Amino acid sequence: MKRIGIYAGSFDPFTMGHLDIVERASSLFDEVIVALLTNQAKRPVFTLEERLKMLENAIGETSCTNVRTGTFDGLLVDYAAQVGARFLIRGLRSAVDFEYERQIDTMNRRLSGIETVYLLADAKYGFLSSSIVKEVGIMGGSIDGLVPEINRNIIVERLRRK
Amino acid sequence: MKRIGIYAGSFDPFTMGHLDIVERASSLFDEVIVALLTNQAKRPVFTLEERLKMLENAIGETSCTNVRTGTFDGLLVDYAAQVGARFLIRGLRSAVDFEYERQIDTMNRRLSGIETVYLLADAKYGFLSSSIVKEVGIMGGSIDGLVPEINRNIIVERLRRK
Amino acid sequence: MKRIGIYAGSFDPFTMGHLDIVERASSLFDEVIVALLTNQAKRPVFTLEERLKMLENAIGETSCTNVRTGTFDGLLVDYAAQVGARFLIRGLRSAVDFEYERQIDTMNRRLSGIETVYLLADAKYGFLSSSIVKEVGIMGGSIDGLVPEINRNIIVERLRRK
Amino acid sequence: MKRIGIYAGSFDPFTMGHLDIVERASSLFDEVIVALLTNQAKRPVFTLEERLKMLENAIGETSCTNVRTGTFDGLLVDYAAQVGARFLIRGLRSAVDFEYERQIDTMNRRLSGIETVYLLADAKYGFLSSSIVKEVGIMGGSIDGLVPEINRNIIVERLRRK
Amino acid sequence: MKRIGIYAGSFDPFTMGHLDIVERASSLFDEVIVALLTNQAKRPVFTLEERLKMLENAIGETSCTNVRTGTFDGLLVDYAAQVGARFLIRGLRSAVDFEYERQIDTMNRRLSGIETVYLLADAKYGFLSSSIVKEVGIMGGSIDGLVPEINRNIIVERLRRK
Amino acid sequence: MKRIGIYAGSFDPFTMGHLDIVERASSLFDEVIVALLTNQAKRPVFTLEERLKMLENAIGETSCTNVRTGTFDGLLVDYAAQVGARFLIRGLRSAVDFEYERQIDTMNRRLSGIETVYLLADAKYGFLSSSIVKEVGIMGGSIDGLVPEINRNIIVERLRRK
Repeated sequence: MKRIGIYAGSFDPFTMGHLDIVERASSLFDEVIVALLTNQAKRPVFTLEERLKMLENAIGETSCTNVRTGTFDGLLVDYAAQVGARFLIRGLRSAVDFEYERQIDTMNRRLSGIETVYLLADAKYGFLSSSIVKEVGIMGGSIDGLVPEINRNIIVERLRRK
Repeated sequence: MKRIGIYAGSFDPFTMGHLDIVERASSLFDEVIVALLTNQAKRPVFTLEERLKMLENAIGETSCTNVRTGTFDGLLVDYAAQVGARFLIRGLRSAVDFEYERQIDTMNRRLSGIETVYLLADAKYGFLSSSIVKEVGIMGGSIDGLVPEINRNIIVERLRRK
Repeated sequence: MKRIGIYAGSFDPFTMGHLDIVERASSLFDEVIVALLTNQAKRPVFTLEERLKMLENAIGETSCTNVRTGTFDGLLVDYAAQVGARFLIRGLRSAVDFEYERQIDTMNRRLSGIETVYLLADAKYGFLSSSIVKEVGIMGGSIDGLVPEINRNIIVERLRRK
Repeated sequence: MKRIGIYAGSFDPFTMGHLDIVERASSLFDEVIVALLTNQAKRPVFTLEERLKMLENAIGETSCTNVRTGTFDGLLVDYAAQVGARFLIRGLRSAVDFEYERQIDTMNRRLSGIETVYLLADAKYGFLSSSIVKEVGIMGGSIDGLVPEINRNIIVERLRRK
Repeated sequence: MKRIGIYAGSFDPFTMGHLDIVERASSLFDEVIVALLTNQAKRPVFTLEERLKMLENAIGETSCTNVRTGTFDGLLVDYAAQVGARFLIRGLRSAVDFEYERQIDTMNRRLSGIETVYLLADAKYGFLSSSIVKEVGIMGGSIDGLVPEINRNIIVERLRRK
Repeated sequence: MKRIGIYAGSFDPFTMGHLDIVERASSLFDEVIVALLTNQAKRPVFTLEERLKMLENAIGETSCTNVRTGTFDGLLVDYAAQVGARFLIRGLRSAVDFEYERQIDTMNRRLSGIETVYLLADAKYGFLSSSIVKEVGIMGGSIDGLVPEINRNIIVERLRRK
């Protein structure tokens, strides 16, 4: 049975830390779906179209042939069931992340029995989050090396207008 | 001198984790007051009436005869003084909870000398919070076993309309 | 039914932080037993007699009339059953303490259903442990204010000879 | 080369914990600049004028002759470059603070190579934050000893009107 | 290319928490090797033979057909290279575990590029460790449900003689 | 008044992470003393002579002209008083480090009023400790890049014989 893992998020925007997890996860699964949460409740800075485009740009440049993008709304475990994924993928950066993940993990296993698999963030991306990219970009700081080069201009443009 | 403990919160909504702490605390004190914060600053999803009704439903079903409900606004230590309670009761789920509680505990002891007593969340409720119940319920996931059965329909109805 | 709480430890030596927890716990319970673990596996620096004497010295000076000392070996939950205590008392100083306590708490509840009640260490004793008293004392630093005054000389003498 | 350190924040309001860090930092640097973030994105409760006035009041009362105030908007590292500061100063209260600071620290070193120097909050201020001062003050609790005495009335007045 | 994961440890003794991780990992990999560290530096309570026998007993009872045992000494990454495993498997119980694992993970990736995959301990085993089993067993407490039933007698016997 | 900072440790052995802190601290102080604890209680793997030699080798290669080595036994605060240092320097790697440092910091300030200044470990050394160098080296793994190149052979030789 094919092993499919879902790496889900708002990706507002997709960072080099996200990309690192995707590339590492691609060797662990037969297929990795990078799934964009379309729900607007979190009031993303980038539009759905921008975020999806940036995901596809970034993944298109990798050498991973078993990674594809998707979108979902509602419960992640329901989406996983629809696409036949038995695994969720998460990156862990810190002990604070850990406590938060424990909550979600337990709830997801309870809702559907799905298994969540964690990879630790690479040391060089341990500080990196979508929030910090936005914060720095809005204030005019350089985001080089924090996001995939191919998406840098889209991000800089959008953040400058905030 | 009678030992009264207050278990205070927004209870938006009251969960099985809250109920577990109440039942365990009832054996420790002569009287336990489950006190609902009526302040609207936290923008609760459930109305005050709904939250109070759900509290009473849940407590009414327990075998604890020394537990009653109350409501308060303003400083919890002032409410404690009014009702003659020398103890506050808190559940602890995680190391992150701990850091937050340390702040509040120190402040409360400073304000009035009141003592806060902690019980660790039962392992099976360590992941449970009012927030996660709302998140799951709003997206249509099952909340069975997360809230007292007697309140399940009220909660499901309300969350469906969000 | 009388509420008895046990505050157990090696007390090698008993510190002002321990004393603070005992005094605060005495208002919460009908009776508090400060129980000395006689097991030698932890290789205490002070003899059993010294440790017990120091416990009694310290407690004898408090105004708490519902605190007594005891000794135990083997499982703490068995000792609790023997003396009719339904509660264990623990002080919590830090998030690291918390994680350790969670293990022990869950095991104890599993072994006998006993409830553990936590008090947060007072801010001024948050740094204090038996280990740090020994470390400082052995190197000739002042331990004034770290241990009950009545026991200071016993402790200084013993640590000087280490 | 002169060593200048910047202690930056929203100071909404400036607390005794902030003051403690400033005084301790003043012995470490040739000059300490307490820099107020003028950005309104965090929706401060106190106006910029009030916050700056309170900063100056508090610092004016200390015996530190090498501390001055400043204001900045935009990236802190850019402000540091402008004023010739090679160091940032931060207080650390808890393990949760630590994880947050690690993110910011790594980003700042990446942006400009600036060094951040940490002092641990004094035990007696480990619980103290601008948020808890506001929370307590708004509900009518005493904030004596939490903020510099000279600013107490300004703060009480403003919070009463919230 | 076959995906092989190694779950390594001293397993002194193998617990229900270990077994839970093995069973969950077996669905993630083509093959799982449960690898016993034969090094005596950690002074295990159970002999190598006992520990290996207990591993085989426990795994023999599962329905997992892709799990086998192994032994290793020296660097785990060298063993992984020998057996063709590109993944290590670890269970995470707490934020303290997390910090420790981060060290080891970074070192292992540095030594050989190997990827470590984490599963969070099931809530009901979050408190469980080989150490706590030994501690309870030595003092005569019940270890039922903490270790695989098939190994209970071996463990009880050995611990009683300590 | 000259600002002198002490960076103390067992340095068993001195790592690249230690060196990074020394170099960064050298810009913060007029003088930095890297002080080797000569106490044998921690049973170091490397002799005092080896450890001191390695310290001097490493520091001799830096461009820092304000760093010197020293040795001490007994209380660090006493040594600081002797050499006229008003500051201690510590590197922080993790939230677990933080809790430990808080204990020591509070004790030191209590003993002598000395101030401890923290720098966060560089992300690339966040995993690195003397213990992990020894562990890897003893098992024959490569320690390249973990210790100053100039000391690598001494370390490899010694660890091989363990």
